[in-house]
Amino acid sequence: MTEGGRRINLDVRFPTSLEQHGSDAMHTDPDYSAAYVVLHTACGLRGFGLTFTLGKGTEIVVLAVEALADLVVGKSLQDIVKDFRGFYRLLTSDGQMRWLGPEKGVIQLATAAVLNAVWDLWARAEGKPLWKLLVDMDPEQIVSCVDFRYITDVLTEKEALDILVGAQEEDRMMKEGYPAYTTSCAWLGYSDQQLKQLCTDALKSGWTKFKVKVGANLDDDIHRCRLIRQTIGPNNTLMIDANQRWDVAEAISWVTSLSEFKPLWIEEPTSPDDILGHAAISKALAPLGIGVATGEQCANRVMFKQFLQASALQFVQIDSCRLGSVNENLAVLLMAHKFQVPVCPHAGGVGLCELVQHLILFDYICVSASLSNRMCEYVDHLHEHFTSPVVIQNAHYMPPKDPGYSCEMLESSVQRHQYPEGDTWKLLMNK
Amino acid sequence: MTEGGRRINLDVRFPTSLEQHGSDAMHTDPDYSAAYVVLHTACGLRGFGLTFTLGKGTEIVVLAVEALADLVVGKSLQDIVKDFRGFYRLLTSDGQMRWLGPEKGVIQLATAAVLNAVWDLWARAEGKPLWKLLVDMDPEQIVSCVDFRYITDVLTEKEALDILVGAQEEDRMMKEGYPAYTTSCAWLGYSDQQLKQLCTDALKSGWTKFKVKVGANLDDDIHRCRLIRQTIGPNNTLMIDANQRWDVAEAISWVTSLSEFKPLWIEEPTSPDDILGHAAISKALAPLGIGVATGEQCANRVMFKQFLQASALQFVQIDSCRLGSVNENLAVLLMAHKFQVPVCPHAGGVGLCELVQHLILFDYICVSASLSNRMCEYVDHLHEHFTSPVVIQNAHYMPPKDPGYSCEMLESSVQRHQYPEGDTWKLLMNK
Repeated sequence: MTEGGRRINLDVRFPTSLEQHGSDAMHTDPDYSAAYVVLHTACGLRGFGLTFTLGKGTEIVVLAVEALADLVVGKSLQDIVKDFRGFYRLLTSDGQMRWLGPEKGVIQLATAAVLNAVWDLWARAEGKPLWKLLVDMDPEQIVSCVDFRYITDVLTEKEALDILVGAQEEDRMMKEGYPAYTTSCAWLGYSDQQLKQLCTDALKSGWTKFKVKVGANLDDDIHRCRLIRQTIGPNNTLMIDANQRWDVAEAISWVTSLSEFKPLWIEEPTSPDDILGHAAISKALAPLGIGVATGEQCANRVMFKQFLQASALQFVQIDSCRLGSVNENLAVLLMAHKFQVPVCPHAGGVGLCELVQHLILFDYICVSASLSNRMCEYVDHLHEHFTSPVVIQNAHYMPPKDPGYSCEMLESSVQRHQYPEGDTWKLLMNK
Repeated sequence: MTEGGRRINLDVRFPTSLEQHGSDAMHTDPDYSAAYVVLHTACGLRGFGLTFTLGKGTEIVVLAVEALADLVVGKSLQDIVKDFRGFYRLLTSDGQMRWLGPEKGVIQLATAAVLNAVWDLWARAEGKPLWKLLVDMDPEQIVSCVDFRYITDVLTEKEALDILVGAQEEDRMMKEGYPAYTTSCAWLGYSDQQLKQLCTDALKSGWTKFKVKVGANLDDDIHRCRLIRQTIGPNNTLMIDANQRWDVAEAISWVTSLSEFKPLWIEEPTSPDDILGHAAISKALAPLGIGVATGEQCANRVMFKQFLQASALQFVQIDSCRLGSVNENLAVLLMAHKFQVPVCPHAGGVGLCELVQHLILFDYICVSASLSNRMCEYVDHLHEHFTSPVVIQNAHYMPPKDPGYSCEMLESSVQRHQYPEGDTWKLLMNK
């Protein structure tokens, strides 16, 4: 990013829709994809970043990355991290480009991709995995990365500093890892046979928490939830996920019909923008012991602020590629702590597990110091394309040790899956 | 759009930043621009649409239009309008592309541009200006254009039909037009001399309602508001607009400091996403007789629904190019009526006045039947680039008579301002 630096921005797509991996009530045929960013410094260091997409339209995010790149290329890493809050604001508040968001949609996804690459570069330059870079920072330095604009009515810099009391129980994480739950067993497109087999296999591997996609057909949901509850038994944890399929009243009645299966939470019951709708659903489901989880399509700290203010969620699902990278995730982690709402990150897709594990490790060690009602999503595909894939042991994320933010993909994978010119796509298109 | 149809999507930019037209506290150097869409039918009809942008990044919206175009090209106008709700949902809920929004940011701006062209085409095919096409529709047909997903907790189809009782006082609009206010006199970058001269000229032309940009510097705001209030006198209307510059507490104290100048409203006091923040500001300013206006960056009906539910605004500022075209604006007009909150559209930019006049005429004739606390923004530049520019008489929008949605630009203007290859830009770049 110093003068003479180059960047490479790529449209990388995996044809996951061929086998209905990732299918849900609203996204029936996703091809898990990424707008992939590689920053080069003059001294030969590289930083890798990405944002996750579902296939079509990834080229739009790549073009947005190109537009933002003009604000990055030519800058030194040192200058960026010296005033990371200022740099965050430079990207999100450009006088002409902020009209395209602000801080939402395509331009925010692109911001995440670019800043994820900057954070990766920074961690590599320090020779640390990103979570450790964060853990080793002074509270003052962490807070200096956060843009408090629009959230001071809920969290001031002073309050943020008071929360960041310093590292705790890093050893526990190194030994045990961070608890995970699996979404891999129950995509909407899977057959009964597949569901049962996958749950049985997962139980054998130590999984105790399972998420099921619902929302397309109530009878089918009852059938599938019953099957899964029978397979995993009464003491393991079941979550359900509607991927925004319902209106408010429909959500309440549908989930009530599924309450006999004792789900811990209903995820994304309605529009991701509907704070007051989620609040109404939370209130209606509380007597049934079912919480509301949302966040994977919550684009910025201002939306999360209100979800917390309105008691509209009981589980905060941060996303490493939807929010504006680490900077904005820090803001959300700190606000969630203030409201004492547990953070259970969204993961899966491509690269989301790799990235978000760093954030939740930081959350445990420096912010929450609690595992109560906390776990990180895990989905078991596409990890083979990364140079430092996640390590899961006994259903726990084991802390990554390689320097960086775990964003780097294998060069061969990137080449093969570039859209539309990679071999994978050339083959599919010629079929 | 029938088989064999073509479309043309263009990046058109006007170098408005050269003279600080359009400058405000957050957008200091906008080049008013448009992603411009031309749909061609096999039988030779054309439909023109656009969405407004601020310069840089317009190419991203144009690429998003290209991605959506695949869902339009090859369809017949008849098939689209027969199930317009379904077609709206096809564009906004594509299983892969909705991840990029949903219904917000770049992809929603592109949706607006494409659907604005479809509505323009429809009105031309019927030989009517768009407002008249809407006024002449059965309530059932109007309602069939609206996607009620996520808003049924506030507005059902039945309620919408009850609101649409039929045309009223169309004659009054034809004679008097719809009242307007001007933003052209007081951009943030203008000198005292300019402000005073422009206000004096505007008063002579019949203007009685004036909007002033504020938010960069309190002393300067006091100075400017005093100057303008002195120039326009105590009985004319003054509005102030901060363009999202403040946090919640800051907004309340800043506006309180300006209350002596008796503004009717404070526009965009904080983040456009902060419903609960706007509610707090509304509550604090109510005793001072100052309302809150917002909406130009409110991307969809779900956000407007909550602003209304939370009493977070007292003036609804719809935008013809931010919301998903006429379809979604209809939803917002109907919800605003249910909550009895007046609609005062956002306009200006390039083309926004041309488009939104149709919507506010429909609102008066078929929905509100009231002019109380209602007026439509007007800014007096760039109209010369349109084939059917707005007609203002005595500070009123006179109903357009030409068939269509008034989106068509002069071919010579489009050519000259295409970015970066148009003559205007070639000249500027070679300076």
